[in-house]
Amino acid sequence: MSGKKVKVGLMGMGTVGTGVIRLVNGHKEDLHNQTGMEMDIARILVQNPSKERALSVHSELITDDPYQLLHDPEIDVIVEVMGGIEPTKSYILEALEHGKHVVTANKDLVALHGAELLKKAAEKECDLFYEASVAGGIPILRALVEGFSSDRITKMMGIVNGTTNYILTKMTEEGAAYEDVLKEAQELGYAEADPSSDVGGLDAARKMSILSTLGFHVGMNLEEVECKGISEVTKEDILFGKKLGYTMKLIGIAKQDDGLIEVSVQPAMVKQSHPLASVNGVFNAVYVYGEAVGETMFYGPGAGELPTATAVVSDLVTVVKNLKLGVNGRGMVAPYKEKKLKSEEQIWAKYFMRLIVDDKSGVLAQLTSKLAEYEVSLEQVIQQPYNSGEKAELIMVTHSSSKKSINGILAQLKELDFVDEIKSCYRVEGSD
Amino acid sequence: MSGKKVKVGLMGMGTVGTGVIRLVNGHKEDLHNQTGMEMDIARILVQNPSKERALSVHSELITDDPYQLLHDPEIDVIVEVMGGIEPTKSYILEALEHGKHVVTANKDLVALHGAELLKKAAEKECDLFYEASVAGGIPILRALVEGFSSDRITKMMGIVNGTTNYILTKMTEEGAAYEDVLKEAQELGYAEADPSSDVGGLDAARKMSILSTLGFHVGMNLEEVECKGISEVTKEDILFGKKLGYTMKLIGIAKQDDGLIEVSVQPAMVKQSHPLASVNGVFNAVYVYGEAVGETMFYGPGAGELPTATAVVSDLVTVVKNLKLGVNGRGMVAPYKEKKLKSEEQIWAKYFMRLIVDDKSGVLAQLTSKLAEYEVSLEQVIQQPYNSGEKAELIMVTHSSSKKSINGILAQLKELDFVDEIKSCYRVEGSD
Repeated sequence: MSGKKVKVGLMGMGTVGTGVIRLVNGHKEDLHNQTGMEMDIARILVQNPSKERALSVHSELITDDPYQLLHDPEIDVIVEVMGGIEPTKSYILEALEHGKHVVTANKDLVALHGAELLKKAAEKECDLFYEASVAGGIPILRALVEGFSSDRITKMMGIVNGTTNYILTKMTEEGAAYEDVLKEAQELGYAEADPSSDVGGLDAARKMSILSTLGFHVGMNLEEVECKGISEVTKEDILFGKKLGYTMKLIGIAKQDDGLIEVSVQPAMVKQSHPLASVNGVFNAVYVYGEAVGETMFYGPGAGELPTATAVVSDLVTVVKNLKLGVNGRGMVAPYKEKKLKSEEQIWAKYFMRLIVDDKSGVLAQLTSKLAEYEVSLEQVIQQPYNSGEKAELIMVTHSSSKKSINGILAQLKELDFVDEIKSCYRVEGSD
Repeated sequence: MSGKKVKVGLMGMGTVGTGVIRLVNGHKEDLHNQTGMEMDIARILVQNPSKERALSVHSELITDDPYQLLHDPEIDVIVEVMGGIEPTKSYILEALEHGKHVVTANKDLVALHGAELLKKAAEKECDLFYEASVAGGIPILRALVEGFSSDRITKMMGIVNGTTNYILTKMTEEGAAYEDVLKEAQELGYAEADPSSDVGGLDAARKMSILSTLGFHVGMNLEEVECKGISEVTKEDILFGKKLGYTMKLIGIAKQDDGLIEVSVQPAMVKQSHPLASVNGVFNAVYVYGEAVGETMFYGPGAGELPTATAVVSDLVTVVKNLKLGVNGRGMVAPYKEKKLKSEEQIWAKYFMRLIVDDKSGVLAQLTSKLAEYEVSLEQVIQQPYNSGEKAELIMVTHSSSKKSINGILAQLKELDFVDEIKSCYRVEGSD
C-alpha cells in the first residue's frame, strides 16, 4: 500500500466538509509525515454542483451522483458529513459493502443505527469511525475506547450540546429569560431556526447513547435514554439554585451500578465546585468516572467547522495508518455485555424542588412528614414570603432518593390543600 | 498469536506496580473481551523478595534477578514501574534488544533518554509506550498523538505536578505560608521528604519536555526547558494576584509560533476565567490549543496507585492488541521537525510585578517612563501605602512584552533610587 495515494470520497460540502478539505489540503506535509502516505480528496458529493461555495475546488471533483463515489474502485475511504438518516445510511452501507472504510460525523445516524453499521463494517473488515459525532473537537471516544480500556467506567456526565449550554450560561450570567436568550442565540447562529432537537434534549440524548454504548460495552438504544429539555427552565430556578450553591446545566447522565444502567438527559443543578459547573458558553465537556482512575474531564469545542473537522480528519489518519499496516476493521470492540436497565426504584439522586405553599404555621412540618412517607428527607431548605405574603416559597434539596419516591411525592403534593403550586423539580449532581 | 497467553514481566512492585497487578487480575474478563487474549503477570522484579507487601502474590513469581525477566523468552512485554535512571535504562534497552515490548511510567527516564529508547524500539520493531509518565490517569499522550493528529498544536499549558498544585491551592484558599503548607503536605504524604524535584519545578519540566516532543514533533531536551519552582511564592503575591483577577499556579508552558518554540515551567498568574485556574488540589490538567480545534482541556488525577496503573494497563492493552494484529513497533511517529528555540526577544507575555517604592509624587511617572524605555507598558496598576507609610507598594500587570525587555527593566529597576525592593515578577497567562 505504501507509496500509493489514499483516495478519499467526501460526502457533503457544508460547514464540516469545507473544514475537512481545508485541513487535508492545508496540513498535507504533516499528515504525510505522520502516516507515511498521501491523502487525496478525489471526489465530492454535493446536492447542487452549481452552487457558489466558501471554498473553491476543481469543478471535476464535484458530483451530485453518489455512485461516482460508491462505485469508484479507486476510492478507499468515504468521509460522510452530509448528515441525515436516509439516503445517508444506505450510502454508508453500500460503501462498506464495496470494502470502503467510513468516517462519519453523523450522530443521528450512529445513535439510531450504529449497531447495524458496525456489524456491516466488521463483516467487511472495514474501519468505521465517528469521533466527531460526540462533542466535536474533544477526542472523547478514543479516550473511552483506548485510554480507559483497563478501567471500569461507572459514570459519565456530559455537557454535550453547545446551544443549550450557551442559553443556560446566558440566563445564569445575565438573569435573562429563556425565550429572550433563545432568540438572541438564533440571531447569532448558535441555535437553529427550528431549535427543537437541541433545546428538547434529543441531540444530547443521541450523544449519551453513543457514549454509554462505548463506555459500558452495551448496545444502548436511543429510546432508552430518558430525555427532558430546557424550555421550562426559569430564571428563578437558576437564581435559587445559585443561592444554594448550584449551577443549572443540561446534563447527560450515564451511570452503571452493579451492572445496572441508567441513561438520561435533563436540566440539572450541578454543585458549583464540580468541574462541569464552570463549563460555559458553547463549550462541551464530558466528565468520566472510572473505578480505578477516579475523576477525569475532557473539555473543548463541541461544534464548529474546524473543531469538528479535526475529529473527522484524525479518524481519517487512523484509517490511513491502518491501511498502511493492513489492519483495518479490527479497531472496534462490539458491545459484549448484557444490558440491564435500572427501574425507577433503582435510580437514586438528590433533587431540588421549588413549591408555593400556604404561609401558615405547621406547613413545613406537615410537608416533611408527607415526604417521610415516601422516604424522602431534606438536606437544605429555604423558606421565604411569596408575592403578596399569604403564600410562602419553599426551596428544598433532598437527600438521595429513588426516582420512584420523587415521582410519588410529586403526584401526592399536587393533592395537598396547602400546596399551591409545584414550580419545579430538578435532579442534583456533583455533590456526593 | 491468538489463544496464547501474553506473558508480562513486571519490574517494580511499589505503589503503581501493586495497582497494575490489581487491575490486570481484577479486570481479567473485561481485558480478555477487549483484546481477545489473556494477560498473565508471569514474573515480578523486586529489590527485596522477603519484604511484606500490601498485596500477596505467589512467591514463585517474585525475583530479585532482572535476567529472569529479561532473558525469559516466554515474556512478551516488560512493564517498568521501578523508576530511576539506572539500572532501569539498561534493563529497558536489554528488554527491547530481546524483542520485548515495553510499557513504562518513568517520566525521568523518558524525559532524559526517550529518544534513545524510542530509536531502539523502532529498530527492534517493538512497542514502547509511556502514557503514565505525564499526568497519571489522564490519557493526554494519546490525545496528542491520535486525537489531534490532523491539527497543528500551537500551545500547551499544563498543571502537571500535583504536589505543587496542592500547595498553591492551600495557600490560595487559606492564605497560608509556603513553609507551613509544605510541611502539612509532607505529613499527608502529598509531598516527599525531599520535595525538591516537585517544588523546584523539575518534575513538571520533565513532563513538559515529553509533551512538547509529542505535540510539536521535535526532539525536546530537558535542559532546554526553563524551570523555576514555587519556593519563593508568598501569600502576598497570591493575594494581590487574586485582587487583579488571577490565580497562582505552577504552569508548564509550551508554545510554538511560526515554527519557533519555547518551553518553560514557572509559577504564573492565570486569569480566573481560564479553565486551568479552577484546577485545584492534587488534580492535574493539560490545556491544549490547536489551530483548528481551538481550546481543549484534559483534567484528572496526576498520580496515585490506581490512576497511574490505569494508564499503564491501557498501554498494555494496546501492546496486546498490536500483538494480536502483528503490528507492534509502528505506533510512534519519530520527531520529524527541525527544532528552533525562541530567543529572549521572541518570548512574549504579560507580566505581574510587585515593587516597593518611595511614596513621593512623580514616582509613578518616572517609573512608567523608565518602563517605556524598555518598551514595557502597563495594563493594570494598584498603588497603596506600604507599612510605615513612607513607602508605597506598586502592583502592576504589563501589556505583552518580550522576556528581554522584562529582564532588562528588572535589572534597571534595582539601580533606581526610588525603588526600594522588587518583591516579585510572574508571567501572566490566560488573558490574551
